[in-house]
Amino acid sequence: MTTFDAIFVPAPLRDAVSDAAWVDAMVEVERALATAEFKAGLIPAAAGALIAEVCRDGVSDPAVLAEEGRAAGNPAEPLVRALRSRLTDDVAGYVHFGATSQDIIDSAAMLVARRALAIVDQELSAVEELCAGLARRHRDTPMAARTLLQQAVPTTFGFKAAGWLVAVHTARARLGGLAAVLPAQLGGAAGTLAALGDDALEVLRLFADELGLAEPTVPWHTNRLVIAELGSALANASGACAKIGVDIALLSQTEVAEVAEAEPGGSSAMPQKRNPVGAVLAGACARQVRGHASVLAESMVAEHERAIGAWHAEWGALSGALACTGGAASAMRRSLDGLAVDAARMRANLDLTEGRVLSERLSYLLAGDLGLTAAKAELTRASEPGNSLEDELAGVLPADELKRALDPLTYLGAAAAFVDRALAMIEGA
Amino acid sequence: MTTFDAIFVPAPLRDAVSDAAWVDAMVEVERALATAEFKAGLIPAAAGALIAEVCRDGVSDPAVLAEEGRAAGNPAEPLVRALRSRLTDDVAGYVHFGATSQDIIDSAAMLVARRALAIVDQELSAVEELCAGLARRHRDTPMAARTLLQQAVPTTFGFKAAGWLVAVHTARARLGGLAAVLPAQLGGAAGTLAALGDDALEVLRLFADELGLAEPTVPWHTNRLVIAELGSALANASGACAKIGVDIALLSQTEVAEVAEAEPGGSSAMPQKRNPVGAVLAGACARQVRGHASVLAESMVAEHERAIGAWHAEWGALSGALACTGGAASAMRRSLDGLAVDAARMRANLDLTEGRVLSERLSYLLAGDLGLTAAKAELTRASEPGNSLEDELAGVLPADELKRALDPLTYLGAAAAFVDRALAMIEGA
Amino acid sequence: MTTFDAIFVPAPLRDAVSDAAWVDAMVEVERALATAEFKAGLIPAAAGALIAEVCRDGVSDPAVLAEEGRAAGNPAEPLVRALRSRLTDDVAGYVHFGATSQDIIDSAAMLVARRALAIVDQELSAVEELCAGLARRHRDTPMAARTLLQQAVPTTFGFKAAGWLVAVHTARARLGGLAAVLPAQLGGAAGTLAALGDDALEVLRLFADELGLAEPTVPWHTNRLVIAELGSALANASGACAKIGVDIALLSQTEVAEVAEAEPGGSSAMPQKRNPVGAVLAGACARQVRGHASVLAESMVAEHERAIGAWHAEWGALSGALACTGGAASAMRRSLDGLAVDAARMRANLDLTEGRVLSERLSYLLAGDLGLTAAKAELTRASEPGNSLEDELAGVLPADELKRALDPLTYLGAAAAFVDRALAMIEGA
Amino acid sequence: MTTFDAIFVPAPLRDAVSDAAWVDAMVEVERALATAEFKAGLIPAAAGALIAEVCRDGVSDPAVLAEEGRAAGNPAEPLVRALRSRLTDDVAGYVHFGATSQDIIDSAAMLVARRALAIVDQELSAVEELCAGLARRHRDTPMAARTLLQQAVPTTFGFKAAGWLVAVHTARARLGGLAAVLPAQLGGAAGTLAALGDDALEVLRLFADELGLAEPTVPWHTNRLVIAELGSALANASGACAKIGVDIALLSQTEVAEVAEAEPGGSSAMPQKRNPVGAVLAGACARQVRGHASVLAESMVAEHERAIGAWHAEWGALSGALACTGGAASAMRRSLDGLAVDAARMRANLDLTEGRVLSERLSYLLAGDLGLTAAKAELTRASEPGNSLEDELAGVLPADELKRALDPLTYLGAAAAFVDRALAMIEGA
Repeated sequence: MTTFDAIFVPAPLRDAVSDAAWVDAMVEVERALATAEFKAGLIPAAAGALIAEVCRDGVSDPAVLAEEGRAAGNPAEPLVRALRSRLTDDVAGYVHFGATSQDIIDSAAMLVARRALAIVDQELSAVEELCAGLARRHRDTPMAARTLLQQAVPTTFGFKAAGWLVAVHTARARLGGLAAVLPAQLGGAAGTLAALGDDALEVLRLFADELGLAEPTVPWHTNRLVIAELGSALANASGACAKIGVDIALLSQTEVAEVAEAEPGGSSAMPQKRNPVGAVLAGACARQVRGHASVLAESMVAEHERAIGAWHAEWGALSGALACTGGAASAMRRSLDGLAVDAARMRANLDLTEGRVLSERLSYLLAGDLGLTAAKAELTRASEPGNSLEDELAGVLPADELKRALDPLTYLGAAAAFVDRALAMIEGA
Repeated sequence: MTTFDAIFVPAPLRDAVSDAAWVDAMVEVERALATAEFKAGLIPAAAGALIAEVCRDGVSDPAVLAEEGRAAGNPAEPLVRALRSRLTDDVAGYVHFGATSQDIIDSAAMLVARRALAIVDQELSAVEELCAGLARRHRDTPMAARTLLQQAVPTTFGFKAAGWLVAVHTARARLGGLAAVLPAQLGGAAGTLAALGDDALEVLRLFADELGLAEPTVPWHTNRLVIAELGSALANASGACAKIGVDIALLSQTEVAEVAEAEPGGSSAMPQKRNPVGAVLAGACARQVRGHASVLAESMVAEHERAIGAWHAEWGALSGALACTGGAASAMRRSLDGLAVDAARMRANLDLTEGRVLSERLSYLLAGDLGLTAAKAELTRASEPGNSLEDELAGVLPADELKRALDPLTYLGAAAAFVDRALAMIEGA
Repeated sequence: MTTFDAIFVPAPLRDAVSDAAWVDAMVEVERALATAEFKAGLIPAAAGALIAEVCRDGVSDPAVLAEEGRAAGNPAEPLVRALRSRLTDDVAGYVHFGATSQDIIDSAAMLVARRALAIVDQELSAVEELCAGLARRHRDTPMAARTLLQQAVPTTFGFKAAGWLVAVHTARARLGGLAAVLPAQLGGAAGTLAALGDDALEVLRLFADELGLAEPTVPWHTNRLVIAELGSALANASGACAKIGVDIALLSQTEVAEVAEAEPGGSSAMPQKRNPVGAVLAGACARQVRGHASVLAESMVAEHERAIGAWHAEWGALSGALACTGGAASAMRRSLDGLAVDAARMRANLDLTEGRVLSERLSYLLAGDLGLTAAKAELTRASEPGNSLEDELAGVLPADELKRALDPLTYLGAAAAFVDRALAMIEGA
Repeated sequence: MTTFDAIFVPAPLRDAVSDAAWVDAMVEVERALATAEFKAGLIPAAAGALIAEVCRDGVSDPAVLAEEGRAAGNPAEPLVRALRSRLTDDVAGYVHFGATSQDIIDSAAMLVARRALAIVDQELSAVEELCAGLARRHRDTPMAARTLLQQAVPTTFGFKAAGWLVAVHTARARLGGLAAVLPAQLGGAAGTLAALGDDALEVLRLFADELGLAEPTVPWHTNRLVIAELGSALANASGACAKIGVDIALLSQTEVAEVAEAEPGGSSAMPQKRNPVGAVLAGACARQVRGHASVLAESMVAEHERAIGAWHAEWGALSGALACTGGAASAMRRSLDGLAVDAARMRANLDLTEGRVLSERLSYLLAGDLGLTAAKAELTRASEPGNSLEDELAGVLPADELKRALDPLTYLGAAAAFVDRALAMIEGA
């Protein structure tokens, strides 16, 4: 999955995408298949029961399976052999009946994804709640908005958090939408389900039911939209986390110091360091997800009825994308949980430019007399480093009007209203 | 957009994402803004009308605008100056009132995307219809299914086309879903709309209405989900086209010769060449879209209230992704339109392995006596190159049963049923 | 190439990768081919001369060529027809004699790349010189080093600039290395040069000579290392620029204010804004280059003797990668040229933490008495926000020793020596 | 690293990039640092010896280290604590003296890369030898060249293999060049080596020596060219393997059947299947390497003196890129080793078009009388499906000349000469 993955990915998620989890899922798929086929009357009830029993016992060593899978190029072929070897000949033939390796691995991928997405969703949900909490608590906490990293106009920290919230919420909803319709895969050797005879569609229906997965219109062996969309949705969800991370890292800068993580990271060299490690790890995770998603995006172009390589490349990329998205969310949860917000420093930074951060407002005030173009030019001049904006404008605007205009608290616009809209959207969801 | 773009992208789509189209869209956004502000009573009606008039005249030279945009790093700043220069001072100040460059460019991007997506949709729709036609006409045309490029089991060409159809249809529906909710952007300097005072939310609503775009919950200056999702949906739609392309190219191989494009490409060297150029160009386009989408995926991680570079990188990538997705669809439309399907050759290729393509079926037939494992082993042996499968199995299965088993027409499974499901899904859509 | 490309790419570079430049290059390749073939005695001298003449006249409309190229899927086929149409039948047959479209386009790509790389090199060289100047001038200007965006230890601005310098220099050297060995392409229909008979290798040698390109060991129609390596080297060079850009943008932050671009960008809304636009555009360019390079990396996997799409996708991606790398360099040149460096502010920021930025040094000083682990713990405690480091350590270290230890000017380590090494490396190059 | 990695990556390479290998490398780096510092007289000889001894014992549980590394965001910080805990206080302080976590992890990355690259090189070397063997043995084995998957002109299998050889050789040489100059990393807290005082440069030199790594001009904490270049070189090397893979898979098609892997993969469903699994796995590996390389390419843009996330994302991506490149090479080694080449089938396929594959030659023959344009048109017509080329041309060319012209063995051009050039290049290497 990744090197030093324990640094990046929470343990339950590491388990959920482990080789063992994949093998368990594959075994569960074989069980569901046998059960569906028995229910459809395609294989003897006794065989179905025996196979289900063997499957419930599981397969012991995923590493061995992978090692053996090198010959066939996938782990399903040795798994089927392993299951069959534990049954008498007359029953063994009903294991994997009418299926192909890709049926098993794709369906298993959906089970792995479902379980992992549930964990990812919990982490994202926690991030959402933390953002919502910040949005609520700091609905009216003024700070400087920064565009291209320059102070722009006043805003509130709550509004910033509301922006994070909307992004995470929307990205999470998309993942939820995909998770709800993860499809079973069953097409047999090349999608026609020919070995299942007249029962094919009935088995397909029962099989999907048994796994709690959606029944696809047609097999999707080489229609990889499901995979590619998962990949991009994971990239976007981790990206939404990393966006918060970059903001936290920027706000945590020594010279800005508006927020601080509750559990900052220490340094092996510098005792004073209080690194925004949650934010940093979220960014690191999102980068890895993008890499994995780029592999999954390529899967769309699959040759005929089974791709020569694109499919095989999915397993690791999907596991990695799931794990690192959960990692990104988990890291941001750590980052935001207990985040120290220094409202006084925010205010101090807002005052740092001695009013320049309000020059947009001033430009509209001056425009009445000067016209906007001249007003802007005048303010650009007055704002030059070294000038005192207040002095420069002394003759232009009445002192009290200037004073009022330079109060950032009266130039927060719809920030609070937007916070309310964001919170309402979430609550309405 | 791309080099030799006329090779790849239909002219209307080239126009739709051209600099001129972007500038037109930006002007339209300024018009809508002034109109919304006048309707909200924020600016004088006369000013609104004059601005709208100036905007309707458009801006002549997008190249000059871009050249001038180098100073500010975006084309909106010189556009605003250009519009203002054509109005008297008292009116000029109401141009772009309370907005920021990103408001204009993001909203314009949505207009550009909407127009381009409409063209992309037409092309994808044509591809869909062509796939549906092939699925219908060849519902029962047998051919070899190929997994890992090896003949696997019999299938039908109609079923193959149905698989293409479902992928294109689903990818197109996703694009349609995104196109329907493209949001307006209006946040002012840093998202708070402070310059608009109490009318901010009313202006936002009217502005979105005026453009026919969705009203966002909060400004999305640095929540780039809309952009990243467009990117991946375009990559997937072009990928769905390229998947058909790779199949067509494979089926067109000299040694396979099951299909031939109606307008094959000639060679500068070889008179006999009938290159599947549509298929090839679709693949080339999809690759370019993936590259552009990877740029857009990175946009998610945007600093504070305006990204330092991620945003600026979107313009070309979005144009390119839109154009090349339309290019992929257009190329596949050319490829599939009038595609010659050689059913006889399909049948001949199916018979090429002298029955090996039915060995899955044989394995289940033999399993009754031998057990499946032994049956498979026996068939693997019997299928070895050089052997005559019929001779090898002569003693194992009764001659007439073997003969029936080796008829591919009786082992097509649910292929026809799946075609019907696919067509029903499309028709139900 | 990109939307609003004049914002990103200098005009000479836009020209160098334009469709017209590609067509000119293709015509030059046809000229070189005819000349080589005439010199090798393969075609009549008169024919060679006439073809060369027609080629020198050029082809008027690259757009028409691209439009016509849609049929064959490439622009060489209509170009050959256009050239032949201007010659009598007996001569026309010697145009493009024995060559294939890919020979022409690949060789043209190398000519385009060579010309564009020369411009890119100039821009990178200018960036290098600017970095070297900063390294020299600020060899001893102290500032805070920042790791994970937290102040870490003192460094010098010159050392930071030296780091930029080494990266740009190394990336530029790699590009230079590739530029020096750009290979001609000539393989004929499928690489064997069969149409050239016994003169094949002689023609290949003369052809490469004529173009001033390297002679390849074998044709490289589907060995795309040259292309993929160009792509990654361009991505790395633009990345080296963007790294400087992100540092400049961070140092330009309102709260940091250690540097300021000489030509900052204005805002359409905020008169006070002095945006580090050069830095921002460099980042935007580098992102686009990475997207293009990812397309070129995929080119490696090319089918048989001509790829079904990978090759066609190269043209736009290569042009884009070249253009945007030059764009990144040009933007950083603008950013660094005349960069205002505020040494006083650097020093003030260094003093911002009241000595915490020297806690690594203190830990080693205290370690003598306390052991390093305890010393680090003590310093972590003493460094906590709100504490006065000097007060906390009053009893632990003698006052004068503490005072000396807290002087950042005496803890710059090998910064100056490293600057000298970097400058020496460049000068030795 | 990947899911089911045993399927993709040889065991020694899995070991070489495992967490345990990374930890071993980190410990070795700490040992080298202490040794260098002792040799430079910076720390007491006894301390150096004790630290070296503790390091030689290694650290037992990499998983625990990673788990603990979550707090600081990297595994070096807990490693240093673990090593120190095993030493008395007076010695413990000399562990990691003057270094930062990134020094340890970057240097360890270079050790891991060096070891892994050695294995990758062996695998690539084996692929090279196999290609060279095929080139030699089949120097004169005629087959059809295919462009855009259509038969183009005759070529030889040896020439095809020579093309593979040159690509693998060149890509391998690039990796070798990078492997030879992998740099040590030592900069201390932020690159200045301040804690090392006047001995800094001497320690740097000795440290690099001790590890057998190159001494960098300046520390490269945020100049990630080394990493990005490794990533792209690995992507290209794996791409060179995957290119062979796609050719093998295409040549192995049931309808083409010109080659067959010696150890084909079986199917879980179809007894007859002889899947080109080596070729398929190579393609799957190369895709994963590209994904990892895209992560490493982004590393170039690193903030100030330590990146907020880009660096952390490298560890898994570098491991994955190394492992999967070895996997690609190993898979192609399996694919090519013992590859069955069916020269008779190659010849039969060459004859499949009844001479159309020689139409380029015919066009030049006919051009004498008709002019080339008319000759090409005539041949395009004569080559149309259904026509007998020989009949169509009966009146145009003398029968014996036509017969000679249609012999592919006399139209192999420089194929053999190119094989010799390729072999000579390799041997000269």
